[in-house]
Amino acid sequence: MIVIDTEKMFREIEAKNPASVSLNGPDGILPQVQEAAVKITEKFGIPAYVLADTTWGTCDLNSNGSKVLGADIQFNIGHTINTDMLDGVVLIDAFDDVNFDSVAKKCITHITGKKVSVVTDSQHLHRVDGVKKILEDAGIKVKIGSGKGQLNDGQVFGCEFYPATELKDIVDAYVFLGQSNFHAAGIALSTNKPTYVLDPYFNEVREITEFALKLKKKATLSIYKAAQAKSFGVIVGLKEGQLSKVFALKFKKELEKHGKTVQLFALTDITNERLQNLRGVDAFIQVACPRISTDNRFDMPVLSSPQANALLKILNNESIEEYLEAPHWL
Amino acid sequence: MIVIDTEKMFREIEAKNPASVSLNGPDGILPQVQEAAVKITEKFGIPAYVLADTTWGTCDLNSNGSKVLGADIQFNIGHTINTDMLDGVVLIDAFDDVNFDSVAKKCITHITGKKVSVVTDSQHLHRVDGVKKILEDAGIKVKIGSGKGQLNDGQVFGCEFYPATELKDIVDAYVFLGQSNFHAAGIALSTNKPTYVLDPYFNEVREITEFALKLKKKATLSIYKAAQAKSFGVIVGLKEGQLSKVFALKFKKELEKHGKTVQLFALTDITNERLQNLRGVDAFIQVACPRISTDNRFDMPVLSSPQANALLKILNNESIEEYLEAPHWL
Repeated sequence: MIVIDTEKMFREIEAKNPASVSLNGPDGILPQVQEAAVKITEKFGIPAYVLADTTWGTCDLNSNGSKVLGADIQFNIGHTINTDMLDGVVLIDAFDDVNFDSVAKKCITHITGKKVSVVTDSQHLHRVDGVKKILEDAGIKVKIGSGKGQLNDGQVFGCEFYPATELKDIVDAYVFLGQSNFHAAGIALSTNKPTYVLDPYFNEVREITEFALKLKKKATLSIYKAAQAKSFGVIVGLKEGQLSKVFALKFKKELEKHGKTVQLFALTDITNERLQNLRGVDAFIQVACPRISTDNRFDMPVLSSPQANALLKILNNESIEEYLEAPHWL
Repeated sequence: MIVIDTEKMFREIEAKNPASVSLNGPDGILPQVQEAAVKITEKFGIPAYVLADTTWGTCDLNSNGSKVLGADIQFNIGHTINTDMLDGVVLIDAFDDVNFDSVAKKCITHITGKKVSVVTDSQHLHRVDGVKKILEDAGIKVKIGSGKGQLNDGQVFGCEFYPATELKDIVDAYVFLGQSNFHAAGIALSTNKPTYVLDPYFNEVREITEFALKLKKKATLSIYKAAQAKSFGVIVGLKEGQLSKVFALKFKKELEKHGKTVQLFALTDITNERLQNLRGVDAFIQVACPRISTDNRFDMPVLSSPQANALLKILNNESIEEYLEAPHWL
């Protein structure tokens, strides 16, 4: 069950006495965000708006939405990072209280005698130490990678993997806590090491390599398809933490050197449906969020930044080995 | 063919010497917006970003998107209103050069001897006088309603119909220029008069009454379904010209008087998909854009403001006759 730190929200409201507040969180926990909003209105008698747009991460807080509403405090729930406040938005923890003891014990038989690193996403950070102890008690050596940027120790985003990649020459495998194949695949691809998902709900240990390789195959195929393209669209993302105009203009310049035509676009949500409105573009490059390209389906190549860098290598007749093996994909 | 007033854009750029510009327009003319962007870059050597998010009207200019990009000038194309500039955005005409002579002559046999009003949307405003003359030459009396707010004479939006409604006691029917059943249905519903679409591409005159009545039936059914609901979600739209927090709070208060529970939400794009993330809500009211409710499909009632006003009447045991017969639906 997801447990939101409502006490912290109450303390903020008591301290700042807002006329209204807004709350948002990832789609999966929106019902719990709604409950928190109801509690706030019951306790303080003020409007509490649930901002129900997407918030994919701290790159996508939708603080403009909250400003438009005129809310005095915005609570972004469920994106725990190494700070409490980002761009004026109060970050609130949403931890999953599910227990990993059983699945961690199960895991021991899969990885006995090895050296592993335990990694997770925001919802299960508080479980890292417990799982570490269970594995160590069974004689497995466990390393927790250091946080960097916004990341806490042992934490990964969908696009940043520092605590994982810094250990890739030291550990034999990664153990990811949670159900997110999405995050685990990022670890597998950025480290090229066996990565196990410890799913506490299914009490299941699953290796993610095959799934990750499928994503990579699809990503690589897109790059080679794009290499045949004559006309490109380079898309700048409009979400507040996804703006990379400099990269967009760099890719434009590089592609034009190779005789390609390039149009510039900007989009808030980069979806196949939105791209279908555009004409005369053989392949897109989007510099907003790398996972849009690797994890979504598009009718034509839509490359992320690491894919676009690989494309430029192909156009320069260089090798593109290991283009996803990097501590981040931005 | 859609003809964009690129000369006006060139003059603006020459006068202001921007480092970069952005352009947007409704989905249907995005290819022509792309062409305009290419021309600008060719002529001035500056980045011209096509903002490919939706822009449903002057209520949805996406000027924040252009600000995020840092573009020095934003051109919004295709939403002709009675001013050249709105909230710092330069409005550029996009007229359809299709000729109405043939379909206007065809129309004469449908409506001989009557008094009609010619109405249209932004793309065909320049054809009103020509069609008026053809009808008058055939002995039909033609009235053109006066503009109001942002509307030019003879123009309607999807949500505002002043030039049509002001004549509803004077004319027998409306003649809409263009292919948009969407706009024509708005005229039919807001006036309760026969409305004919003059479609120059199919060279076809079609009455829109049946289509409009279907929309109304669906809208009315939603109101009665919502009257059974116990828990409501009231949604504020975050698009810059769609913010109606006051209405949202009014509906909340009124519904609570009737013993309903009400949660507050905010969304940029109000879609069935986004609403599916939310729990414990029997019916929604959205105060963003009335056409979202009448023209889209949702799994549960999603009422617009006029529908919500009708709902309150039902809850007060009053009649809801003619709830859409109004000069605007905001």
